[in-house]
Amino acid sequence: MDKKIKIDVEPIGKRIYIKKPTNGLNALVDAGIGIKTVCGGEGTCGKCRIMILNQKDIPVNEQEKNMLTEDEINKGVRLACQQVFDKDLDIYIPAASLSEEQKLQVVGEEREIEIDPICNKYHLKLEKATLEDTTPDFDRVKNALKKDYSVDVETIDYNVLKLLPKAIRDNKWEITATVRDKEIVYVEGGDKTGGNYGIAIDLGTTKIAILLVDLKTGKTIDSKGIMNPQISYGEDVMSRLNFAISEEKNLEKIQKVVIDNINEALKKLCKKNKIDCKELLEMTVVGNTAMHHLFLGLPVRQLSFSPFIALSGQSLSIKAREVGINISPGAYIYMLPSIAGYVGSDHLAMLLATDIESQEGNIIGIDIGTNTEIGLKTKDGITSVSTASGPAFEGAHINYGMRAAPGAIERVVIEPESYKPIIQTIGDKKPVGICGSGILDSIAELRKAELINTRGKFDKESKFITKDSQGNSQYLLYNKDENEDLISINQKDIVEIQLAKGAMRTGIDILMDNAGITFDKIDKIIIAGAFGSYIDPKNVINIGMFPSFPINKIYQVGNAAGVGSKRVLISKKQRINAEKLAKKVDYLELTTHPKFSDFFVNSMQFPEPERII
Amino acid sequence: MDKKIKIDVEPIGKRIYIKKPTNGLNALVDAGIGIKTVCGGEGTCGKCRIMILNQKDIPVNEQEKNMLTEDEINKGVRLACQQVFDKDLDIYIPAASLSEEQKLQVVGEEREIEIDPICNKYHLKLEKATLEDTTPDFDRVKNALKKDYSVDVETIDYNVLKLLPKAIRDNKWEITATVRDKEIVYVEGGDKTGGNYGIAIDLGTTKIAILLVDLKTGKTIDSKGIMNPQISYGEDVMSRLNFAISEEKNLEKIQKVVIDNINEALKKLCKKNKIDCKELLEMTVVGNTAMHHLFLGLPVRQLSFSPFIALSGQSLSIKAREVGINISPGAYIYMLPSIAGYVGSDHLAMLLATDIESQEGNIIGIDIGTNTEIGLKTKDGITSVSTASGPAFEGAHINYGMRAAPGAIERVVIEPESYKPIIQTIGDKKPVGICGSGILDSIAELRKAELINTRGKFDKESKFITKDSQGNSQYLLYNKDENEDLISINQKDIVEIQLAKGAMRTGIDILMDNAGITFDKIDKIIIAGAFGSYIDPKNVINIGMFPSFPINKIYQVGNAAGVGSKRVLISKKQRINAEKLAKKVDYLELTTHPKFSDFFVNSMQFPEPERII
Repeated sequence: MDKKIKIDVEPIGKRIYIKKPTNGLNALVDAGIGIKTVCGGEGTCGKCRIMILNQKDIPVNEQEKNMLTEDEINKGVRLACQQVFDKDLDIYIPAASLSEEQKLQVVGEEREIEIDPICNKYHLKLEKATLEDTTPDFDRVKNALKKDYSVDVETIDYNVLKLLPKAIRDNKWEITATVRDKEIVYVEGGDKTGGNYGIAIDLGTTKIAILLVDLKTGKTIDSKGIMNPQISYGEDVMSRLNFAISEEKNLEKIQKVVIDNINEALKKLCKKNKIDCKELLEMTVVGNTAMHHLFLGLPVRQLSFSPFIALSGQSLSIKAREVGINISPGAYIYMLPSIAGYVGSDHLAMLLATDIESQEGNIIGIDIGTNTEIGLKTKDGITSVSTASGPAFEGAHINYGMRAAPGAIERVVIEPESYKPIIQTIGDKKPVGICGSGILDSIAELRKAELINTRGKFDKESKFITKDSQGNSQYLLYNKDENEDLISINQKDIVEIQLAKGAMRTGIDILMDNAGITFDKIDKIIIAGAFGSYIDPKNVINIGMFPSFPINKIYQVGNAAGVGSKRVLISKKQRINAEKLAKKVDYLELTTHPKFSDFFVNSMQFPEPERII
Repeated sequence: MDKKIKIDVEPIGKRIYIKKPTNGLNALVDAGIGIKTVCGGEGTCGKCRIMILNQKDIPVNEQEKNMLTEDEINKGVRLACQQVFDKDLDIYIPAASLSEEQKLQVVGEEREIEIDPICNKYHLKLEKATLEDTTPDFDRVKNALKKDYSVDVETIDYNVLKLLPKAIRDNKWEITATVRDKEIVYVEGGDKTGGNYGIAIDLGTTKIAILLVDLKTGKTIDSKGIMNPQISYGEDVMSRLNFAISEEKNLEKIQKVVIDNINEALKKLCKKNKIDCKELLEMTVVGNTAMHHLFLGLPVRQLSFSPFIALSGQSLSIKAREVGINISPGAYIYMLPSIAGYVGSDHLAMLLATDIESQEGNIIGIDIGTNTEIGLKTKDGITSVSTASGPAFEGAHINYGMRAAPGAIERVVIEPESYKPIIQTIGDKKPVGICGSGILDSIAELRKAELINTRGKFDKESKFITKDSQGNSQYLLYNKDENEDLISINQKDIVEIQLAKGAMRTGIDILMDNAGITFDKIDKIIIAGAFGSYIDPKNVINIGMFPSFPINKIYQVGNAAGVGSKRVLISKKQRINAEKLAKKVDYLELTTHPKFSDFFVNSMQFPEPERII
């Protein structure tokens, strides 16, 4: 009986199969997964930590007891090299155990804006206190700010007040005060006006982009992309919300894991750039409504069930320490408001960063992700929708799918005559799976070669089309050894992509219908998001995600949500603009739209040959 | 095996457990037992006497031999601070060593003011959310507040935001929102506009007065006085400041003990009045500058050394949860500003509560305590001084001194002919010591009887005047058994009182001198504070604390600082008035005043016979 053992590996998003019980480290290495190992599987270096998610009573041996803390053991952390994979498992490899980081685009196209940060530093030379001048410390600083800089302050952060007397007296009455609105949010000894840093975050369902920004110049000093570790509690938004409400402690758990990982990333980013985390004076966070709530640990029951109500449509400024983020002791986290429903502040940030409102003509702005938000700007304003496109383009639910890690097939061309695949992998490594852009290319090329028909069915004979063990037709992308080393796109994968692109196309069609315009009136398509910047834009046309459209009017702008997050970090005016914009954007609920079903059925189709470009 | 050590403490009736052998004083203090200590565990004040009941051969060290009589040692009396609790013990704490169960006046004379609290509750019947109306929860509440009550809010407390969805949905979309300035600081299900409570605290060096107030009616529902447990770290302000700066962890320790005790008292007060602590929507705290800093855990090094600088001269609104006070989750603590130096917000509150500013004539306002603040109001305004009068009137540094606990001698009259003392004790118990008012009476009566001269020396023969074992003259107040059961006032006690009253008189004299008026121009003396309301006003004249003055122009108003704290709890206008007043009051530093020494030497004198009333 040939039942394969199935191992789902996060955060890579890859499913591997093994035929028989196998040492965990070997299984992972054989599948091309870049897990760290120094001792070569002796159990003495402790580098190959994995977390086993779906098992209780996981065996633990002496080696593991030596290398792991009790807390880790209780959480299901083990050493891959000391485990035998003998049943279906869900495992999570912590970032520290991964040898190669994934390809995470964190930056995007930026336009110049006025630098006008909410936090500003002022260098003060204070008069020394004497028995004749016993002005209290805070009042002394307040008076000096007024006198030297005409800056009015009303209050000082409680924790920062505690730092004040030492900062003053250890530094000969010379300090630098950071003022935010009318509050002193940080004090340092001496002249520290040079170090004025902030963090802009785009908190995606799958990826988190972190930008370290100089608040004075507006320049991005460094950036870092990490996986959203909440993925171990569910791949998509709904499954995470379900996790969060299923048990009382879960909300705290799912919040903590993302806070801890962001803190860890901030620590590394600061260390690398020789900055003290305490010098991070403000943080801005954008994300979809669910990510927003889970980041803040806000209850999500009302967001999980119809009519799907968010807790706040306002921007929120919350002390970082209250959220558990370790930056400057008095720093705030500024959360941009959501627009409505699941159309979150990441979409708002994207609309802001692309200046879509002030551009001429009819424009579509789309940020492709696990949830895909689409905005249509016409002369009547901006209307936005959210589509549950799912994580197929992240490689999930795709037989050989994986995230954009080394070894992932990211480009595919099918030779017109021979139907032979030409593939390119990330890092030119041996292929181990297919990531989103590779999947998109594959489907588009299969359709262009008419190997699949408009309904997505395999429709031609070729030596590259075979049946897999379950009898599904598959197109072989890589086939070194038919039994062992094979990567293909099969019929089920095609259906997954049909559903995903269909969801997006439905959103676009309903937006057009709602605005009363046809697609030929569209002047520009802006594709934002990490995925959106890796794809070949002609292939989004060729799979019918968009109707036929001139390629030169498609703009790939990268992580526009991250750029929007940065904009509100470095500019008060942009905050005001964003908050105004949030109120102006019309939200269109797709699922209750009367034409939703009709549009959705049509949108699953692939284009006719004459529409392929 | 981990067997705990069990200590039964009488007369409290409390059993405490310790995990490992522990210093006796620390064990008792950590268990929240109000045992006295002046020296902070050095074994030099002898206040922390305990009797060990169930042991023989109890170790006794040199310190104890110095402080205790042989008889005491034989009876099992020891100093808690010199003992290690290392086995199960039954101990008894003599009343004289207990700082609890004392007579604590917490209320004061009140004048009617307009009720205008900063926190107000609004009952809202919200429209239920639907797919057609997906307004977020906070926005929905905000809109309803505007529509139903014309109340503008801008923000909601982070912790309260977390409570919002459940409060709404568990109560059929009917809630009560509490608004403070433009912030929602609490939400409850249903109509809770009836329960609108706040806490006003007067945080004294020795005593803490806690008032439970109905914010809607302005009525004091209940009140409670507790000892300031920081007393275990030092009796007076300076020794506590020294403790706080002597080791890194000490500031946190000395803050924690007062926070814990206040939380405990609040819990009891709420339970008794059937109120949930979460319904306490605001707290106001007044206290001298050192108490203010130690309550908030603010650094005090700069306050401990010349030029004695406070951290803030502004009022502060700080989230109660950040200070560790367990009241409503989004509640603030409002700290009235200090005036200057050690003239704290308790003095400001007293000035506010007595409406001294708006009264006609020249008025002295004095709050007698461990630190005594005196304000002089003339047509030119108010000037205030702080005098380190010390804790003698609290019974400290007085041979048989104790606090106003049962058994304390509180009234003394000396028969003119026989010089026989007539005493009255608190609770009519067997005398165990003398409290402040008894000490004041004793000295005044000794002077009136001319048993002591103007320099305070014993000057007459009497069978009630004897020599103690050290050869000091003493006047016998109680003398059941000369060796065992004796209470007296000795020469050293008289010097302590001379120093204390001299400090106050110096303050008054310098204030008069500074204002350029003589004492006969004074129209009124207001004596505030718990001690001030127990004393016989003629005796403050008779010991020369004040110059001769008509008794009927002396007003004893009780805990005016507590009344001031309450005023700013129930009225925004009073906050504004108080903050303005703080800036208007002139502070006069006594110690650097050129005439300080001259005045001080004179002020030590007791009055001539013709000035005794």
